[in-house]
Amino acid sequence: MSDPYVHGYTTREARRLGDQAGTLAELLHEGTRYPAGAKVLEAGCGVGSQTRFLVEGSPEARFTCLDISSESLAQAEAQAAERGWENLEFVRGDLYDAPFAPASFDHLFVCFVLEHLTRPVEALAGLMRLVKPGGSVTVIEGDHGSCYFHPDGALARRAWQCLIDAQAALGGDSLIGRRLYPLMVQAGAEQVRVGPRAVYCDDSRPAWVEGFVRRTIIPMVEGVREAALAEGMMSPEEWAEGIAQLHQTATAQGSFLYTFFKGVGVAPAA
Amino acid sequence: MSDPYVHGYTTREARRLGDQAGTLAELLHEGTRYPAGAKVLEAGCGVGSQTRFLVEGSPEARFTCLDISSESLAQAEAQAAERGWENLEFVRGDLYDAPFAPASFDHLFVCFVLEHLTRPVEALAGLMRLVKPGGSVTVIEGDHGSCYFHPDGALARRAWQCLIDAQAALGGDSLIGRRLYPLMVQAGAEQVRVGPRAVYCDDSRPAWVEGFVRRTIIPMVEGVREAALAEGMMSPEEWAEGIAQLHQTATAQGSFLYTFFKGVGVAPAA
Repeated sequence: MSDPYVHGYTTREARRLGDQAGTLAELLHEGTRYPAGAKVLEAGCGVGSQTRFLVEGSPEARFTCLDISSESLAQAEAQAAERGWENLEFVRGDLYDAPFAPASFDHLFVCFVLEHLTRPVEALAGLMRLVKPGGSVTVIEGDHGSCYFHPDGALARRAWQCLIDAQAALGGDSLIGRRLYPLMVQAGAEQVRVGPRAVYCDDSRPAWVEGFVRRTIIPMVEGVREAALAEGMMSPEEWAEGIAQLHQTATAQGSFLYTFFKGVGVAPAA
Repeated sequence: MSDPYVHGYTTREARRLGDQAGTLAELLHEGTRYPAGAKVLEAGCGVGSQTRFLVEGSPEARFTCLDISSESLAQAEAQAAERGWENLEFVRGDLYDAPFAPASFDHLFVCFVLEHLTRPVEALAGLMRLVKPGGSVTVIEGDHGSCYFHPDGALARRAWQCLIDAQAALGGDSLIGRRLYPLMVQAGAEQVRVGPRAVYCDDSRPAWVEGFVRRTIIPMVEGVREAALAEGMMSPEEWAEGIAQLHQTATAQGSFLYTFFKGVGVAPAA
C-alpha cells in the first residue's frame, strides 16, 4: 500500500529534485561505493535523481531501481538511456511489498523515501529481507526541523512550518532524520552508524547559496503555497513576505543551515 | 562596559564548563595551532576551560588571557599553576576597552564570549585592533536555535526556550552562531570562513550522550530553572516533565543535536 507524495509529480518538481541532487551529491554520496558485480536495490528511485550519482560512484555495480510511479520510472529510464547506462533495471512495485525474493540483493540504498511513508520501520524491515545477511543498508533522509537561518524572520519560519505541516498531513514525517538511528535499529539493521551531513550557506559559499537556498529550498517551500493558503495557514501577504524573508537569508548578511542524515548498517541474518 | 553573564559564576558552573570543554575539545579546537613564540590573545578566558586546550595544542606559543572577572581569572591561574604552564599571563580587563596597545598580538582567539555581549561587532572590532595586520582571528560560538532532539517533547522544547530567553534577557544572543560570518565581516575581519561543527548523539555514541547531553546540556538548562519559574515561564510540574523529556533524548531510542560554529579570518591592516 503506497503513501501520497508531498512534492507531487510535476515537471518542475523533477527539475527541483535534479537541482537538489546536483548540488548535494558530494555531501550525500561520499562514502557510498559498491564493488563490480554487486547487486544493489535502490528502493524508491523516483525520477532517478540519486540513481545518477549511484551509477557514477559505482559504475560496475548492477542496480535495480524500484518505484511505485510508472511516470517517474519512465523519466528515470529515459535518463539511463540518454547516458547509455546498461547496468540498471527498473521495476515498478510497492515498497511495502516489493516483487523480489528474499536475499535477492547484496546491498540496499534508500534516499529521501522513508520520510514520505506512514510506516517507515515496516517498510525498511521488509526491504532489508531482500538483502543477503551481512549486506550493507544505506539510508539518507533530511530533517526539516534542522533548518534555521539568519536573519531569523518570523514569517519565513512560518512558511517553512507550512512545508512540515503539509508533509505531516499526508502521513509523512519530515523530521525523520533525527530518528534515523533508532528507526534503523528497530527495523533490524545491525552495526548502525548515523552521521549528520550539514549544508551551511553563507556569502563565502556562493554556489551553495545559489544551488541550495535559491534553487532548492525556496522552490520547495513555494511548492506548498497553494495548500498553505487554502488551509488558511498564512495570508497571501504573509506568504509573500515569508518568501521575501527567505531570500534575505541568501544575501551577503545572511546564512542558511539544513542537515541531512546518512545511516549505514548491515542486514541481519534471516 | 561589561555585560552580565547568563551562566553565573558558581562552582558548579565552572565544573560544567570544564565538562563541556572536555568532551568538545577535539571538535572545537581541531585546526587551531599557533607556532612557537607566537603571541596569542585569548579574550574572555573565564575559568580557563578553553585555555587548557589552547596550551595543549600550541605548547610553545605565548598566551595572554583576558577576563573581566577576578574570581574566574584566579581559577584560570590556579589551573595553570597546577599544570605547570609557564607560557601564560593573565590580565584583568574589559573586552570593550582592553588594556593593550594596538597590534600587540600575533593572533586572537575568542570562544563562547560574543554570545554574552550586547555589542559583539564592536567588541570584536576592538579586539582585532590589538592584532597585527594579517594575524589570525578565531571565533567559536554556539547557537541554541541549532538544537533539536528525539523524542521531540513539547515541554523539553519549552525548557530549552527558557535558556534562550534567559540569555536574551541579559542582552546576549544565544543564536549568534548562525550569524558569525556576517558578524566577523562587519567587524572588519578578512578572508572569513565559518564552518558548522555539529555534535550528534545517539545510542551508538555513549560517550557523547553522557558527556554532552547528560553532563553539559541538561545541567545548563537546569541552571535557568529558578529564573524560568520566577518569571512564570513554566510551572514546576511542567519544568520537571521537560527535564524528564530531555533525559529521554539520552536513551537508546533518542538522539540529540547541537551545532557550534567556528570562524577563522585575518586581522585587517590598521
